[in-house]
Amino acid sequence: MPEQDSAGIVETQYVTIAQPPNEMVLDSGLKLGPITLAYETYGELNASKSNAILITHALSGDAHVAGRHHPDDSKPGWWDNMVGPGKAFDTSRYFVICSNVIGGCMGSTGPSSIDPKTGQPFGLSFPIITVADMVHAQILLVDQLGIDTLLAVAGGSMGGMQALEWAVAHPERLRAAIVIASTHISGAQSIAFDAVARNAIQADHAFKGGHYYGGDIPASGLSIARMLGHITYLSDESMRAKFGRALRDGNELRYEVGSEFSVETYLDYQGEQFVNRFDANSYLYITKAMDYFDISACYGSLDEAMARVRSKVLVLAYSSDWLYPPAESEAIVYALARQARDVSYCCIESAYGHDAFLLEVDVMRGIIGGFLDHALPHQAGYADCRNTEDKAPEGDAEPAGHGIYRSKRIDYDLIVDLVEEGSRVLDVGCGDGELLRRLIDRKHVNETGIDVSQDRVARCVQRGISVLQADVDKGLEPLTDQSYDYVILSMTLQVVQKPDLVIREMLRVGRKCIVSFPNFGHWSVRLKTLLSGRAPVTYNLPFEWYETPNFHVLSLKDFRSFCRSVNAHIEQEIPLRPRGIAKRWPNLLAEEAVYVITGQG
Amino acid sequence: MPEQDSAGIVETQYVTIAQPPNEMVLDSGLKLGPITLAYETYGELNASKSNAILITHALSGDAHVAGRHHPDDSKPGWWDNMVGPGKAFDTSRYFVICSNVIGGCMGSTGPSSIDPKTGQPFGLSFPIITVADMVHAQILLVDQLGIDTLLAVAGGSMGGMQALEWAVAHPERLRAAIVIASTHISGAQSIAFDAVARNAIQADHAFKGGHYYGGDIPASGLSIARMLGHITYLSDESMRAKFGRALRDGNELRYEVGSEFSVETYLDYQGEQFVNRFDANSYLYITKAMDYFDISACYGSLDEAMARVRSKVLVLAYSSDWLYPPAESEAIVYALARQARDVSYCCIESAYGHDAFLLEVDVMRGIIGGFLDHALPHQAGYADCRNTEDKAPEGDAEPAGHGIYRSKRIDYDLIVDLVEEGSRVLDVGCGDGELLRRLIDRKHVNETGIDVSQDRVARCVQRGISVLQADVDKGLEPLTDQSYDYVILSMTLQVVQKPDLVIREMLRVGRKCIVSFPNFGHWSVRLKTLLSGRAPVTYNLPFEWYETPNFHVLSLKDFRSFCRSVNAHIEQEIPLRPRGIAKRWPNLLAEEAVYVITGQG
Repeated sequence: MPEQDSAGIVETQYVTIAQPPNEMVLDSGLKLGPITLAYETYGELNASKSNAILITHALSGDAHVAGRHHPDDSKPGWWDNMVGPGKAFDTSRYFVICSNVIGGCMGSTGPSSIDPKTGQPFGLSFPIITVADMVHAQILLVDQLGIDTLLAVAGGSMGGMQALEWAVAHPERLRAAIVIASTHISGAQSIAFDAVARNAIQADHAFKGGHYYGGDIPASGLSIARMLGHITYLSDESMRAKFGRALRDGNELRYEVGSEFSVETYLDYQGEQFVNRFDANSYLYITKAMDYFDISACYGSLDEAMARVRSKVLVLAYSSDWLYPPAESEAIVYALARQARDVSYCCIESAYGHDAFLLEVDVMRGIIGGFLDHALPHQAGYADCRNTEDKAPEGDAEPAGHGIYRSKRIDYDLIVDLVEEGSRVLDVGCGDGELLRRLIDRKHVNETGIDVSQDRVARCVQRGISVLQADVDKGLEPLTDQSYDYVILSMTLQVVQKPDLVIREMLRVGRKCIVSFPNFGHWSVRLKTLLSGRAPVTYNLPFEWYETPNFHVLSLKDFRSFCRSVNAHIEQEIPLRPRGIAKRWPNLLAEEAVYVITGQG
Repeated sequence: MPEQDSAGIVETQYVTIAQPPNEMVLDSGLKLGPITLAYETYGELNASKSNAILITHALSGDAHVAGRHHPDDSKPGWWDNMVGPGKAFDTSRYFVICSNVIGGCMGSTGPSSIDPKTGQPFGLSFPIITVADMVHAQILLVDQLGIDTLLAVAGGSMGGMQALEWAVAHPERLRAAIVIASTHISGAQSIAFDAVARNAIQADHAFKGGHYYGGDIPASGLSIARMLGHITYLSDESMRAKFGRALRDGNELRYEVGSEFSVETYLDYQGEQFVNRFDANSYLYITKAMDYFDISACYGSLDEAMARVRSKVLVLAYSSDWLYPPAESEAIVYALARQARDVSYCCIESAYGHDAFLLEVDVMRGIIGGFLDHALPHQAGYADCRNTEDKAPEGDAEPAGHGIYRSKRIDYDLIVDLVEEGSRVLDVGCGDGELLRRLIDRKHVNETGIDVSQDRVARCVQRGISVLQADVDKGLEPLTDQSYDYVILSMTLQVVQKPDLVIREMLRVGRKCIVSFPNFGHWSVRLKTLLSGRAPVTYNLPFEWYETPNFHVLSLKDFRSFCRSVNAHIEQEIPLRPRGIAKRWPNLLAEEAVYVITGQG
C-alpha cells in the first residue's frame, strides 16, 4: 500500500559534466573530468523554475533522499521523513533535487570509478576533493537542469557545510540556505576522530595502498571507522537509553574477551552493514574533505566570508550534538548577524546527539516549513501570512508578546511610533515576535529578534521574522558596537538576571535603546507595601514573591539613577497609564514607562 | 639537582602472592596464582601503621607514581605533581603505596607473563580480570606489608573504580576513599569506545589471536586504540586550544590522504610511544575490566552497595570530563548521602577534560590535602583545626558565612540553640561552613552542607565539614524523604531562583526546617519605598536593584502566607532585631526572622 505522504517511486538519474577539455578545476589545482553525477528529483519544477530545493547529504549519504526505488524496497530514502508531500520539504510545492557528492561511491565519480586514463579504478590516485569541489559539481548539475536560482540549499552535517559553501561561494544562485547540525570549520576533535578512522582503514592488511578493488576489501578497517563514527553521532544520553549495559545473550557475563554488551553487538552490526555498501577509499576522501572544511579560508575571516551571503539563512543546532556542538552553529549565526545578513537560529532541545537531524522531524517540519514559506516573497504562503498580520486589530491584540508579562501591551504602539522607517532593529526578548511583526508591517524595519525559548523562536520563524535563540543574560558579546539603529527591551528588564549587563550591552550595540518596564514606584505598589508589609502583588506586578519571574523590581526613579551611573543619556521618558501618558508625578502615577536612551551620555 | 618536593629516587619492588595451593579465586571463578605484584612506596610507615595511603592507577598507569628510578630519568612517575613532600599526598606525613594492577604489563602478572603451566606467555588464555580482582590482589599486598587499615585509597579514572571497590567490598580496611574522575558503572558510550579499541587491536594482522609474543606486535591496532583513548581524555575545548587546525608543516594544505594536521601528528606520536611500552593483550584485559565494572552488581542496587561503606569518601569530578561526566560522580555521592555516609563532593571547573585529574594540581592539593587532614581523628592537623575553631569567639565572628549576606550573622547562635544534640543536619547554601562548624562543635551534629561554589566547598572540606557541591535551585531530588532531622536555609531564601521549589524540597527531606531571611516588611524598607518611590536599599537589603543577588524579597507576612499555601506548619517564628527578639509588631520591627517549620501542616 503506498504511503500517502511518500515521495513515491523514484529512479536515480545520471548526468555527465566536466567533459574534457572542460574538466573541472579542483581546489587542489588538479583537473577532474568527465564526472558522472548520480541524482534524484521529487515534485515538479514550476514554470518560473523558482521552486527548486537542493538537498545535500552527509558523509555516508547518497542521492536517494526520499521515496523508494521499487515498491517492495524495505527502506525508503535516508531523509524520507523530511521530504515528501506535506513534509518539511513539501514535494507537492517544491522541486527537490539530491545528488551524490563527487568522491562518493553511490553513483557519482569517486575513487572506485574507472580512471579513463588507465582503465583501472582510481584508488588513491583520485585527486583530493573539497566541500567546495562537491558544490562546484552541484552547480554544474543545476545548470544542466536549467535552473538559475535555487529556492534553497539544505543539508545536515557535511550537507550543512555544502549549504554554507553555496551561500558564500555562489551567493546569487540561491534564495535561502538551511545549515543543520553543522559547522563552518572542522575542529581538532572531529579531525582527530576522522584521523583515527583513516588510520584504521589504512592499517587494514587488505587495504594495499588503496588498490584492493577486485580482491578482499579492507572490511575490518572500514568497519572500525564506521563504529567510531556511530559513537560520535549518538549522545551519551541516547546510548544510555538505547543500550545501557544490556548483554547480547541473557544476563550473565561470559568472562571472555569478545563482544558481549548490546552496544558492542550494535556497533559490530553497523560496521558490517556499512562495509557492504560503502567504499573504503571514499571514506578516506570524504572525511578528508570534511577535515579540510574551513569556510573562511579563502576570504580572510569568517565575517568576510559571511559578508558575501545574499540568501536568507536558517541555522539549526541540537542541544546534545557533541560532534558539531551548538557553539559552532552560533559562530556562523553571529558572523552573519554582524554582517547584517538575514539569519535565524534555533538550538533544538534533543537527546539524540548529532543524529537528531535525522530524527527530530516534528520540530524541524515546523521551523523549516515555516522558513521556506517566507523564502520567496511572492509565494502564496507568504502573502497569506502578511494578510493575517494586517487583519489583526493592532490596538486590541491579546498580549501574545512575552508570556511573562500578562497585562495588555500598551507600550507596543508607542514603541512602533518611536522607531524610524526602514531602520535596523534588535528586539531583545522578542517573544513570539508580535512587536517586530508590527514594526515590519508599519515601519518596514530590518529586524532581528532574540529570545531564549525554542518555541517562541520557532513561532517567529513561522511568521517570517529573523530571530536568534540566545540567552541575553550571557550578554550580546558576538554583536558589534553601534550596529543596530534601535535595540529594544520591552517589558523584559525585570525578568533578566543581570539587568546591569543587559542594558550596558544594549547601549554598546544600539545607537538608540528603547526600554519599557512596569513601575515599582506606582502609588498602588507603594501603598500596598506600606500597609500590608508584604512584597507587593498588583495589576502590573501580578506574581507572589515566590513564583515571580520578576527578579528585579524598579521604579522610574531607579531607572533614571541607573542611567546616570552608566553614563546613559535619557532622550525620552514616557510614563504610561492604561489610557495614555502620565504627565504629572510620573513615578507615582505611571504603571509602566518607556525610555529612549543612548550611550552618548 | 634534586627537586625539593620530589619523592626522590625510588625502586620498584616485587612481591609474590597467591602461591599455590592458595591461588586467588577470581570473579570468573577461575584461579590465578602465583601472582607477582610490582609496587613502589614513598615516605615512612609510622609506628601505629596508620598513615598508609594506597594510590590506584588508571588504564595505562603503573606502580611508578612519583619520584624517579634513576637521577637521570627524563620523566618522573605519572602523578609526581601530586605525590611528594608537601604535595596533595604529602610523603613527609604519609606512607604512599602504588602497585601495578593484575592483568597489567608493568611488572605485575598479566597476559604477557609466563603461564607456569605451559612455560609460554598466557596471551588470551589469561583469565578475565575484574576491578574487584585487582583490588583483591591489592588487599593481599597490604596484608604482606602488615597494614591492617589504610588511611586512604585514592585514584582517578579506573583508579577511582578501585578506590570505590575498596570502600564497598572491604569497608573495614580503609578510613577514607578518594574517587576522582570516575564512575560507579561503565556506560554504553565508554564500553563502545573500548569495543572499537579492542576491535582495532584484534583486527591487526599481527595480533594472531593474542599469540604475537616473540614476533611482530599488533602495533598499528594498539596505536589506533591509544589514539582513540587520547581523544576521550581531552575535551573539545582543550583540543581546540592545543591544536586548533595547525598544520604539521607550514601553512599549506598538501592535498594528500596522509596525516597533516598537528592533532593527527600528535595522535600518531602518542600511538607510537604507547606501542613501545604497553602490551596489546593487557589493553584488551584492562578495558574489559573497566567495561565490566558495576559496583552495584553484587549488592542489588547502588544504594545497597553504598550502605556497606564505613570510610569517609571524597568524590571529585571535572566540569569538562565527558568520558566520566560529573553526573556519574553525583550518582555515587547521592547514594552515599542517602545512606547517611560521610561524603564530600566537588565538581572542579576545568577545560582539560578527563585528563584534568592529572593536571588540576593546585585545586586538588587544597581539597585532597584538607580532606586527608581530617581522615584520622587523632592526627595533629585535625586537632589543630579543632582548636582554631574552638578559639574563635563565637558571637562576634565576622560574617564569613555566605558572602552574599553582608550583615553580622545574628541568626547563627539562635539556629545553633534550636538544633538538638547529635542530630542529622543539612545546611542548604552552607557557604564556607561557619554555621555547620558551630553546630558540630556545640551540638555534635552529623552534618551535610550544600553549596554551589567550588571555592566554598573546598573551604568546607578543609575545615573537616562534609559538603556537596550542588545548585539547590535544581531541587534536592536525589535525597530521601524525611532523611534529615533539620534542613537549614539561613539567609539564602532571597537569593535562590526558585524559593517555592527549594522550600518544598526542604520540607520533604527534613523533619524540621529552619529558615532565616531579611524582612522586607521592616518599617525602614516600607518607609523608604513609600517616600522615595524606589526599590529599597537598606542595611539588610544593601544592593541596588540592578546588582542585587536578592531575586525575591519577602516579609514575615509573606512567609506566613506562603507556609499556609504549601501546608507547612510554623512551629516557631523568631523575629530578630540586632539586639534581640522583636516581640511586638514583628513584621514592622524585625530586621530578619528565623522560622522553624515542618511539612506536617
